[in-house]
Amino acid sequence: MNGAHSLVHTLLKSGVDTCFSNPGTSEMHFVAALDQVPGMRCVLGLQENVVTGMADGYFRIAEKPACTLLHCGPGLANGLANLHNARRARSGIVNVVGDQATYHRPFDAPLTADTEGWARPVSAWVRTSTRAEDVGRDAAIAVQAARTAPGGIATLVLPSDASWDEGGLPADPLPVPPATAPDPHAVRTAARVLREGRNVLLLLGGPALREEGQRLANRILRATGAKVLAEGSNARVARGRGRMPLERVPYVADVAIKALAGFEHIILVNAKAPVGFFAYPDKPSRHYSPDAEVHVLTRFEGDAVAALQALVDELGAPDAAIPDPGPRPEPGRGAPTPEGLARTVAALMPEGAIVADESVSFGRGFYAETHAAPAHDWLHLTGGAIGDGMPLATGAAIAGQGRRVINLQADGSAMYTVQSLWTQARERLPVTTIILSNRKYQILIGEYAGVGANPGPTAMNMLDLGNPDLDWVKIANGMGVEAARATTLEACADLLAQSTSRNGPFLIELVI
Amino acid sequence: MNGAHSLVHTLLKSGVDTCFSNPGTSEMHFVAALDQVPGMRCVLGLQENVVTGMADGYFRIAEKPACTLLHCGPGLANGLANLHNARRARSGIVNVVGDQATYHRPFDAPLTADTEGWARPVSAWVRTSTRAEDVGRDAAIAVQAARTAPGGIATLVLPSDASWDEGGLPADPLPVPPATAPDPHAVRTAARVLREGRNVLLLLGGPALREEGQRLANRILRATGAKVLAEGSNARVARGRGRMPLERVPYVADVAIKALAGFEHIILVNAKAPVGFFAYPDKPSRHYSPDAEVHVLTRFEGDAVAALQALVDELGAPDAAIPDPGPRPEPGRGAPTPEGLARTVAALMPEGAIVADESVSFGRGFYAETHAAPAHDWLHLTGGAIGDGMPLATGAAIAGQGRRVINLQADGSAMYTVQSLWTQARERLPVTTIILSNRKYQILIGEYAGVGANPGPTAMNMLDLGNPDLDWVKIANGMGVEAARATTLEACADLLAQSTSRNGPFLIELVI
Repeated sequence: MNGAHSLVHTLLKSGVDTCFSNPGTSEMHFVAALDQVPGMRCVLGLQENVVTGMADGYFRIAEKPACTLLHCGPGLANGLANLHNARRARSGIVNVVGDQATYHRPFDAPLTADTEGWARPVSAWVRTSTRAEDVGRDAAIAVQAARTAPGGIATLVLPSDASWDEGGLPADPLPVPPATAPDPHAVRTAARVLREGRNVLLLLGGPALREEGQRLANRILRATGAKVLAEGSNARVARGRGRMPLERVPYVADVAIKALAGFEHIILVNAKAPVGFFAYPDKPSRHYSPDAEVHVLTRFEGDAVAALQALVDELGAPDAAIPDPGPRPEPGRGAPTPEGLARTVAALMPEGAIVADESVSFGRGFYAETHAAPAHDWLHLTGGAIGDGMPLATGAAIAGQGRRVINLQADGSAMYTVQSLWTQARERLPVTTIILSNRKYQILIGEYAGVGANPGPTAMNMLDLGNPDLDWVKIANGMGVEAARATTLEACADLLAQSTSRNGPFLIELVI
Repeated sequence: MNGAHSLVHTLLKSGVDTCFSNPGTSEMHFVAALDQVPGMRCVLGLQENVVTGMADGYFRIAEKPACTLLHCGPGLANGLANLHNARRARSGIVNVVGDQATYHRPFDAPLTADTEGWARPVSAWVRTSTRAEDVGRDAAIAVQAARTAPGGIATLVLPSDASWDEGGLPADPLPVPPATAPDPHAVRTAARVLREGRNVLLLLGGPALREEGQRLANRILRATGAKVLAEGSNARVARGRGRMPLERVPYVADVAIKALAGFEHIILVNAKAPVGFFAYPDKPSRHYSPDAEVHVLTRFEGDAVAALQALVDELGAPDAAIPDPGPRPEPGRGAPTPEGLARTVAALMPEGAIVADESVSFGRGFYAETHAAPAHDWLHLTGGAIGDGMPLATGAAIAGQGRRVINLQADGSAMYTVQSLWTQARERLPVTTIILSNRKYQILIGEYAGVGANPGPTAMNMLDLGNPDLDWVKIANGMGVEAARATTLEACADLLAQSTSRNGPFLIELVI
């Protein structure tokens, strides 16, 4: 058995059965092994940032890692931005990066690059398997690293000779350590703060934002009067009917500082204390009050649900119903507004939908209008590297096994990984993309105002996307995805409703 | 004056007057400075690998560096693959990468990443300017590094506070060291080998492949009977009437080994001794004979033309005319073949055209049929990281000031950086793209055969681009570029001829 076959066998034994790929010459033996060993679903992406973004979306829904197949250092490099986002989402991914044969590397052939060096900043674990005998063992360790709480990026570099040489040994799965148990001291401290403090914020991140975590957080809120917020950018938030009407820490510095000003205590549950996405002259980096005390209930690797349960027990917080969010919204009408679009989506999304949100500036108020939607999961751009929404939607649809994915997608960001549409068409995925077509980098025009000047033609040349306008219907059709344009919310609602009854993808260009 | 203004002033004083950009929040003060200080042409790319590839194409034609404007670590990461190609082309580029404010970095905000770590593998020079006072000085050093022979990638990381703080000091240009003068010993050795050896190969790379280098190489060839070849992948080769009918070292291992087998001596002129692009089981890494002696006339930083002149003088090689390549080819006819397409391009390209060649497997024989075309420059994919052709064509057109660029472009590679078309439309660039639409990764299907198996459905799912077919006319139209499909060489010739009389871009989808 060669190294490549041992790799496929090990991955499958470890429960990795989906491979997002864009292979090259040095990976041909691995491709052959995937072909010859049954069990791996292989999904092609036409650019590697699509591939890695799909793997991120897949993990967020499937709750287990997929592998990627990437070609040499530059193939990995193309996927780094969405690996950055995946790292911030704390997603588990096993990257398999084919590379030059060990003995060929010193010749510095054109595609030779510092593959490990590029992998390290986004990876929790990096290793190059230099011998076929090691590949199975290393792959099992990679999967273990990817599955270790909260989830990590494991990058296995596979020189082509380690792939084609005989001597491969499939390895058994390695045990995955459980998430860290609650620290009794941290639980008691949090309980004391909640009992005694008046202005307490319970800040939820990671698995605390899933249904069970919210159920417990709701009991704490009812028992103590604390406020509960989600981090600003989250991998996955359970939302809609039956879930808490949670809001997020606002993005805009002034708004966030105002929203957080009153809190004297912040209890972090798999979350970070809120800081600015960027610094601004004369604004603080920390968005919470300098007088606030920050308490850590759980770190990222902690078992958030167990910790919240321990806190509920310590507080003796009684059962409490999640509040009723009121009636389901009606679709919006007339010219597209953020609130109207959010209501339209809330009105028409199917039960169990997944929202992949890269709406950037347009979508900051989407939460408020969608609490009364049917139960759904909401995925955010976690690392700020734009170009994640479409690949996330695609990977989430692969993992979702029929769940409808609604991708709320800014146009400038969409262009980064527009190739995702082709994969959606090939795999006939239930993805409805709503392109928020404002034909500019609106967020940057807003930021430019903060510089204290009006943009002249040179600046606007870098901030607007008009001249020529992108025609999203043609672009989508060109990649095999049906599409239509809407200029009103009524038209958008019609298209959205139609799209959810289809089997495959559909794109709505919503001119805003 | 703030740091950003000092940066723009310094770049302009140093002769950098073109900025390929995709800015973000942390670069707004630099964008404002570009807006307020006249003189910089700013060209927006909708994804950073387009941006860096344009900068590479610009350098190859303009022979001076442009700057890029990239957003934080992930923005740089998106452009690394084409920086890898630019490094292999030995192109000079000044990357300006905006980043978190120095004091904000410790807070690990979502977009914080290891920007320097990602830059280092592709850069000859990396520095973070931590104070506004340092920005001008550092920018002058960056330009010096980019212009130092043969050309290098200089990456200047610009934290936002170094950009917005007052205290900026524009710096004067620093002297650029000349290319290394010929080594008399190397010249004498090469002359002796050429006089005494029988099977001698003069292998040209870098500036040796420009017109003057070829004129001198031709005299050496005439005087000594040596053979002359170009490296396999070159940044820029002067070709067509009045230039040598040079061939390249073949890509395919067996073909290259056969072509090089007879040479007992190889003299390198700004070139590397030929090795395989990849290793293959039971094939050597070196493609030249194990018995051959390799002699270095000049390294990459050497003055190739001066060294060739010194060699001509040492040999006393008389003036010699470049051989006449025969009549200009007629356009091909019927179904598209590589030879027929090459003849069509040779027949119809305008004098002074630039060919940006990312034709991959289809284009291996293009040289043989295009020696008798009008004088033109040919740009190759140098680093093997696909997705370079369209950005190269775009940047070359910016530098070419009206020269027609013909982009011979494989479809799978085109999808990597398809966003380039929009920039071509916005800037109304004279680029004719010929998409070689075979709807598969043909090179990989060829490589798969070497694994010794027929691809089954799982493998073909990763190697073919059909299901659905990409519709290049729609994709191009969607980005504002006129386009048409051709299935015969006659139709291709008609469209190519029409396109060269236009002002703007045009795309031909040639179904092969």
